[in-house]
Amino acid sequence: MVHPENDRQFKSLKVNKGVTAKPSVSPYFKKNSPQKKVATSDFVDGIFQGDIAILSKAVTLIESSKDEHQQQAQQIIEQCLPRSGKSVRIGITGVPGAGKSTSIDVFGMHLVQQGHKLAVLAIDPSSERSKGSILGDKTRMENLSREKNAFIRPSPTAGSLGGVARKTRETIVLCEAAGFDTIFIETVGVGQSETAVHSMVDFFLLIQLAGTGDELQGIKRGIMEMADGVVINKADGDNIERANLAAGHFRNALHLFPLPDSGWSPKVLTYSGRFNTGIAEIWKMIDDYVAFTKANGYFDAKRNEQTKYRMYESIHQILYQSFYQHPTVERLLPQLEQRVLNNEISPFTAAKQLIDLFAHK
Amino acid sequence: MVHPENDRQFKSLKVNKGVTAKPSVSPYFKKNSPQKKVATSDFVDGIFQGDIAILSKAVTLIESSKDEHQQQAQQIIEQCLPRSGKSVRIGITGVPGAGKSTSIDVFGMHLVQQGHKLAVLAIDPSSERSKGSILGDKTRMENLSREKNAFIRPSPTAGSLGGVARKTRETIVLCEAAGFDTIFIETVGVGQSETAVHSMVDFFLLIQLAGTGDELQGIKRGIMEMADGVVINKADGDNIERANLAAGHFRNALHLFPLPDSGWSPKVLTYSGRFNTGIAEIWKMIDDYVAFTKANGYFDAKRNEQTKYRMYESIHQILYQSFYQHPTVERLLPQLEQRVLNNEISPFTAAKQLIDLFAHK
Repeated sequence: MVHPENDRQFKSLKVNKGVTAKPSVSPYFKKNSPQKKVATSDFVDGIFQGDIAILSKAVTLIESSKDEHQQQAQQIIEQCLPRSGKSVRIGITGVPGAGKSTSIDVFGMHLVQQGHKLAVLAIDPSSERSKGSILGDKTRMENLSREKNAFIRPSPTAGSLGGVARKTRETIVLCEAAGFDTIFIETVGVGQSETAVHSMVDFFLLIQLAGTGDELQGIKRGIMEMADGVVINKADGDNIERANLAAGHFRNALHLFPLPDSGWSPKVLTYSGRFNTGIAEIWKMIDDYVAFTKANGYFDAKRNEQTKYRMYESIHQILYQSFYQHPTVERLLPQLEQRVLNNEISPFTAAKQLIDLFAHK
Repeated sequence: MVHPENDRQFKSLKVNKGVTAKPSVSPYFKKNSPQKKVATSDFVDGIFQGDIAILSKAVTLIESSKDEHQQQAQQIIEQCLPRSGKSVRIGITGVPGAGKSTSIDVFGMHLVQQGHKLAVLAIDPSSERSKGSILGDKTRMENLSREKNAFIRPSPTAGSLGGVARKTRETIVLCEAAGFDTIFIETVGVGQSETAVHSMVDFFLLIQLAGTGDELQGIKRGIMEMADGVVINKADGDNIERANLAAGHFRNALHLFPLPDSGWSPKVLTYSGRFNTGIAEIWKMIDDYVAFTKANGYFDAKRNEQTKYRMYESIHQILYQSFYQHPTVERLLPQLEQRVLNNEISPFTAAKQLIDLFAHK
């Protein structure tokens, strides 16, 4: 059952302006008119040509709360959809301090050097409060941020997890249409965003540290179960033994869970982000996973489930939003609420009256 | 955010026929035509006169899944509403084995003997599976079931917790209109129904047993926090000391929670259902609570909150139901789902199209 108080958030859903990445100079933007409206066809052409400045500006439209921006964004997404879906989407999470930035930088460089095109996105609905703790600063990924085949996009700082998740999914579509064949989606590993990320990726990678026997602490219950692979950072120098010990602990812990629907037993590997060791093995694991799940049909089945989930999620969001923003509903709701409180009509009848006004018979 | 899979239950919500209490012979029912349709005005008149057979038949309408029954039920409820709201509504929960039936029988007899009129309802969405474990058998309350000023009604065995809860709330309205001044709503104390019950009562009473130091076990986290009073059964014979010890434990446990919004510190009392001792003290506690919260305004404020909650809950249930049962939506949903899966349109656009068809602009 739905708790009305939770649902009512949709009524008052405030979508803030997204973080606007400043586009570099591009043939589509005149130097002195950065605000000039770009035609939808120019957006689409630019994205298809892999123009990162155009892509970036299109993502800004997705993140905008303005109606006209949203309309154009949807037109762009529609045209990009036929070219989407070809990438491998990887969720990356880990507690703060696990070295996620360095790791993503190293993972990304490994992929780019192999000829891949990589987009790095993030989901962190808390970033508004924490002042953009996640990907707020592109320079956290020092090497990757200088690569032309890498597109790094901070998390939209807007509103609810649902809203942020939708924008991220739409950004994935544009990135794929722009030719990015690998998408990273980073989360902080301590909140609820992991479920949202899990619902949009093919592979879920959990970064951990060799600890003091408390390896499972700091990571929320349920996140371990989602992992298709656990990788333990800082397996270098004096720390190698501890990292191997931690890997053993994680392997034991993972054995406690039933085999996931994918049929894939989650793997545990060690690596060093600092010394750039063990990285190829991680990518071999992910390639193996993709091959394995494509062969057994799980890869496509999961994608379909995710897509359906998005559709029903959208239905429910838009249903609430359009109901509570409907002029007649907005006008009558307070009156009916008062009549219900006065015991003049039942809550059920009031609800029915409002919905009869809102919906076609 | 709403999980679509949970919400879709509303689409396929199956409402079973409620348990129909066999009405005793009454002036409104001809002996040889028990199925004869009773006019709404006859229902309302009968309820206002406190006719238990009529009340019982009206509750059966509320519990029915038939459209015509539901329509008549709503008409009856509307006319009963102005006379509702005057009772004290008490939620009673406790783990199986705590002696709930005996206790309710004893509590109820105490009230009836003081001139009160008592209705005993139950919420137990699991009863379909467990074959009516709760109030399924009126004879569990041996003395009370013989009292003309007591109305005992088993839990509706229909469908979802939301559905069962709504029927119970509507039954409360009819009982109040029939002059019942005290309503008990019993739950099993191990499930999620306690939150539903808490959202419809003025006072929440938790029945416990003197145990072996494990007093808090067996009761779900969160139920303790809801209790306005904890009463410990079987404080008799050799067990008195253990009951007092348990009472001490509960008092300590309750001190760990912040003072509830009511401003009322939950009390812990002991009693014996078997030997009928300590019962008056429990009722003094509840009377004190009612006086206290009426004086500080909490009683009415909570009632208003509960009523609003019911309205928004109804809105969301009816919104889903009418959307997914809308003929155009039912026809187009599978096609649009397929187009979304084929990447021909975005989940967002598909959702928007369906809602545009469903809702007035």
